Amino acid sequence: MENYQSHPLAPPLDTTVWFNTPEPLTLEELRGKVVVIHAFQMLCPSCVFHGLPQAKVIDRLYPRQDVQVIGLHSVFEHHDVMTCDALTAFIHEYRIPFPIAIDRPSDNKPIPHTMASYQLQGTPTLIVIDKNGRVRLNHFGRISDLEVGSIIGGLLEEKLTQ
Amino acid sequence: MENYQSHPLAPPLDTTVWFNTPEPLTLEELRGKVVVIHAFQMLCPSCVFHGLPQAKVIDRLYPRQDVQVIGLHSVFEHHDVMTCDALTAFIHEYRIPFPIAIDRPSDNKPIPHTMASYQLQGTPTLIVIDKNGRVRLNHFGRISDLEVGSIIGGLLEEKLTQ
Amino acid sequence: MENYQSHPLAPPLDTTVWFNTPEPLTLEELRGKVVVIHAFQMLCPSCVFHGLPQAKVIDRLYPRQDVQVIGLHSVFEHHDVMTCDALTAFIHEYRIPFPIAIDRPSDNKPIPHTMASYQLQGTPTLIVIDKNGRVRLNHFGRISDLEVGSIIGGLLEEKLTQ
Amino acid sequence: MENYQSHPLAPPLDTTVWFNTPEPLTLEELRGKVVVIHAFQMLCPSCVFHGLPQAKVIDRLYPRQDVQVIGLHSVFEHHDVMTCDALTAFIHEYRIPFPIAIDRPSDNKPIPHTMASYQLQGTPTLIVIDKNGRVRLNHFGRISDLEVGSIIGGLLEEKLTQ
Repeated sequence: MENYQSHPLAPPLDTTVWFNTPEPLTLEELRGKVVVIHAFQMLCPSCVFHGLPQAKVIDRLYPRQDVQVIGLHSVFEHHDVMTCDALTAFIHEYRIPFPIAIDRPSDNKPIPHTMASYQLQGTPTLIVIDKNGRVRLNHFGRISDLEVGSIIGGLLEEKLTQ
Repeated sequence: MENYQSHPLAPPLDTTVWFNTPEPLTLEELRGKVVVIHAFQMLCPSCVFHGLPQAKVIDRLYPRQDVQVIGLHSVFEHHDVMTCDALTAFIHEYRIPFPIAIDRPSDNKPIPHTMASYQLQGTPTLIVIDKNGRVRLNHFGRISDLEVGSIIGGLLEEKLTQ
Repeated sequence: MENYQSHPLAPPLDTTVWFNTPEPLTLEELRGKVVVIHAFQMLCPSCVFHGLPQAKVIDRLYPRQDVQVIGLHSVFEHHDVMTCDALTAFIHEYRIPFPIAIDRPSDNKPIPHTMASYQLQGTPTLIVIDKNGRVRLNHFGRISDLEVGSIIGGLLEEKLTQ
Repeated sequence: MENYQSHPLAPPLDTTVWFNTPEPLTLEELRGKVVVIHAFQMLCPSCVFHGLPQAKVIDRLYPRQDVQVIGLHSVFEHHDVMTCDALTAFIHEYRIPFPIAIDRPSDNKPIPHTMASYQLQGTPTLIVIDKNGRVRLNHFGRISDLEVGSIIGGLLEEKLTQ
């Protein structure tokens, strides 16, 4: 039997601008929910073709009091064109309904802060955090809807321990 | 909070011939596993296009000690051509790897026995049975991979109570 | 520049039963039209997943005075279960709207007559015959909609020479 | 019988920057080829999901001495973020192999010059020009691969008249 306490606590989201939410979200306030973070770049084809559509169906399936989907725009290339204004247009055109945050750029490295603290390998990455704030999935690349559903369904059965 | 004991016990599978298994399977012997039954007809387009491919990916994702996928050939129309021999050829051509059973035909009604006892409305139907032998899903028509995964993932977290 | 007279004349269709047409069709009577023959078996997955849907969209795109789509059920395996009755149920369930013929079985070989005279390698095969009755495509396996459309579109520009 | 001389002559392409070609292309120099222009915007989901993949398969199917595919970036909204630099990154990330031109922006209107002269209704639009430089298709929205192939296949059979 797996001991979920062995999983690392999710680092805080270090972000700048938020979209589709009146207030920035914090993982602390989301304790008790399963949190699904889709890390993407607006010019990443695999994010556009696979990751974002998957994030949308996750958002549609679960009530938001159970599962919170968050898009994290983790820009590590083409910084000059994947700007906040460009992302605003992208979110509008692609009709993304769930909260999206811009990962805080680093002053001296291409990798933004949250991407670094979660040690993401690239985009798309799907991160799943349990009700107790621990990282239970950190998956770079494609992952099937069946597998993602199975992970979320399992975590929804777990209890909030504190 | 849902009380799973309120769910009905799964009726036994009343079948004739089995494929892809040395011995017929019984739900009793499968206690402790999640059981996924895909009720289909070989001449049902939605079974062929959607249900069977989904059953295949379920079978591929989970170890068989955790999840047992079963195909149930519940013929309620075109009985004269959806014969045991025809199904044998179908299983071979469609390369179905998991156990498949023929639902026992009724002597005087078009609906076969297991289809009647589970009150199936047609094919494809996806039935999910928990570790304690209770029916937790009985879904006629299409259902998304995400939703099926979520249900199975949740049931895998439950305990065998007896 | 290609000389289409170098292409072989299409052998006659040697068939038994026809579906979805008041009278059997003959290639002779179809002179002046482009004829698209989808050779299939009802238990061939690639026919069901790819070939038949493609034949349906061809049938839907072109007026029947220009392009005649024909399904040819060329059974070369599992003869005992891919019977006329089974095909009748299949055509009904898959809602195939265009004329379908059963390729005449051979007395002593698994390959039926038309399949032999066209030297088909298997199913699905797409055959395209020009307005003058010559075979311009005889393609075993998948072929893209773009390529099929391009071939038909080109043949529609040709003239009936006799 | 249709008289293709009734079709309008294609207006010249009024563009700024070209990608994937050593020299800007002109319709005049392309006389004798069928020219397929995919008018798109990099932030248009239907262009990304449907139009560009279709343009890629057209480019792949035909030899370039027969059919020339051109992408036309006709920006009529979000001008500030669909810049030349952004398009450069987009072409790189989506690995678009065929020539692409930026439609020349208007000084005082949102619609760029070529978009205006072709009276495009939006993006994606597929324009097909025959060997004699006449517009034979100007289709806004999705169009099937079969239909596009059929149009191109027909035009390839026509002769260059001058």
